[in-house]
Amino acid sequence: MTIRDRAHALVRELQDTICSAMAEVDGTPFTETTWDRPGGGGGWSRVIQEGRVFEKAGVNVSAVHGTLPPQAAAAMRARRDVGVADNAPFYATGVSLVLHPRNPFAPTVHANYRYFELGDGEDWWFGGGADLTPAYLFDEDAVHFHATHKAACDAHDPAFYPRFKRWCDDYFNNRHRGERRGIGGIFFDDLDDRGPEAILAFQRSCGLAFIDAYRPIVERRKDTPFTEEHRRWQQLRRGRYVEFNLVWDRGTVFGLKTDARVESVLMSLPLTARWEVDHHPRAGSDEARMLEVLREPVDWVPLDEAG
Amino acid sequence: MTIRDRAHALVRELQDTICSAMAEVDGTPFTETTWDRPGGGGGWSRVIQEGRVFEKAGVNVSAVHGTLPPQAAAAMRARRDVGVADNAPFYATGVSLVLHPRNPFAPTVHANYRYFELGDGEDWWFGGGADLTPAYLFDEDAVHFHATHKAACDAHDPAFYPRFKRWCDDYFNNRHRGERRGIGGIFFDDLDDRGPEAILAFQRSCGLAFIDAYRPIVERRKDTPFTEEHRRWQQLRRGRYVEFNLVWDRGTVFGLKTDARVESVLMSLPLTARWEVDHHPRAGSDEARMLEVLREPVDWVPLDEAG
Repeated sequence: MTIRDRAHALVRELQDTICSAMAEVDGTPFTETTWDRPGGGGGWSRVIQEGRVFEKAGVNVSAVHGTLPPQAAAAMRARRDVGVADNAPFYATGVSLVLHPRNPFAPTVHANYRYFELGDGEDWWFGGGADLTPAYLFDEDAVHFHATHKAACDAHDPAFYPRFKRWCDDYFNNRHRGERRGIGGIFFDDLDDRGPEAILAFQRSCGLAFIDAYRPIVERRKDTPFTEEHRRWQQLRRGRYVEFNLVWDRGTVFGLKTDARVESVLMSLPLTARWEVDHHPRAGSDEARMLEVLREPVDWVPLDEAG
Repeated sequence: MTIRDRAHALVRELQDTICSAMAEVDGTPFTETTWDRPGGGGGWSRVIQEGRVFEKAGVNVSAVHGTLPPQAAAAMRARRDVGVADNAPFYATGVSLVLHPRNPFAPTVHANYRYFELGDGEDWWFGGGADLTPAYLFDEDAVHFHATHKAACDAHDPAFYPRFKRWCDDYFNNRHRGERRGIGGIFFDDLDDRGPEAILAFQRSCGLAFIDAYRPIVERRKDTPFTEEHRRWQQLRRGRYVEFNLVWDRGTVFGLKTDARVESVLMSLPLTARWEVDHHPRAGSDEARMLEVLREPVDWVPLDEAG
């Protein structure tokens, strides 16, 4: 099997495994839609909307190929050392998921694992990661999510977690507000510093670790009693989630400006969101504590490479 | 009085007049916040949040000066013939408003009138316009909004309305969905083809016409009985409003990426919004009719220059 085929098989496997686990948590099966891309390839979108636990959950796989639009080629040249020609043939496959639970104490989560290839494999790289976005902070949840991903990283390279944790804090940043989107996790892109098999194995470990990282958190928070005030704060935080995705997320903005499939690109948005003018949580409140951590990211597990 | 002072006096006058009228419609006064810009200047923000008629209404004036950030200078060079130096001194003043009524049959409305000056007035121009965003279409409202603005335009130049109407349809375009944000109105930018006094007089006519254009519409729709389904469609359309503002609106995106005051830039966002995956209104429904007009803009009043 080529690397391209193995990368695609992995993202399908992750989609199946994660959807099974999350459908069990919700008690609702995902609904699948398949779609074709006019330029070549297509996707498998799986959704739960207004489920018992998840207000909105989307787990998408796509595998697309064609020739690189000049705008995409220019963005890649700016990032990578190798020459990237306009209209070069490309292949890309990935799994991307966002889960928005209904309960304000159960955090939103995002993960994405992807493989990109130019020409006949002359250039290739992997990208991915997973990050957690609570409206209310529970230290034990943050520690568990990070520690689980750290263990998956450490099994492959002790340098991965510290590097990808910081990259995640840098990437998911609502710069206009001086707030991170959430409490982070891991993020990496352009990973090509070792053989593709080794990176695939690393992606598989992280992708499967997602379930261990997230499931116990959503299980223990999903039925927490809450008030209208908790729900309102959750909705305000979802507004910030929308701001990040539409203003700063490279993939979303690029997709919307290059005619990608809108329903897949915007599946990440929450079912509902809220914006109030000049909202400031009361000093010392749980909401204020959440904000502090978004303004000043925390090292939830030690970052030293010895682990 | 310099043009700069007269332009500023005009936007303050429009803020006062429009706020008085809209506070009367709502039965609630606006709350004013003033702010200073670290680089020079400041603003007057007026807000009604969770009023009787308006779920969220913001009418902002700003007057700022300083030296042009290189990113702003580059954007201007791309648009205007004259050379625009990085770090050139600039002055900008404007009024910007967005009103989101609670009732799904009462349309959201936006207007903005602004003046920009470079150096000691070596280069200057005006921009502005007003546009209507209903969730449900009433032809008589669309015709009234357009006809009122057309009359204001025609008094100054019969070529204005046809040109600015088309410009509005082109500008407020959610390209990724193939849908306009609303049913249009007028939009213009870089207006400098006649003396500044003549353009100021034109802006004043349009700005005051806003009240005649919008007030009767909101008055006759604000108490229309509605169901949860109507409200849900309104929320979905508000999601599209957020998409336009955060992805395509030049001023918003530029503001967020250049450290403008976030609360003023994002005051345009609705109190609440909604995103569902693959939502399609039933063929022949009021919702489907609304979408058709957003996909294919209508000439609500004749566009011929004779008027």
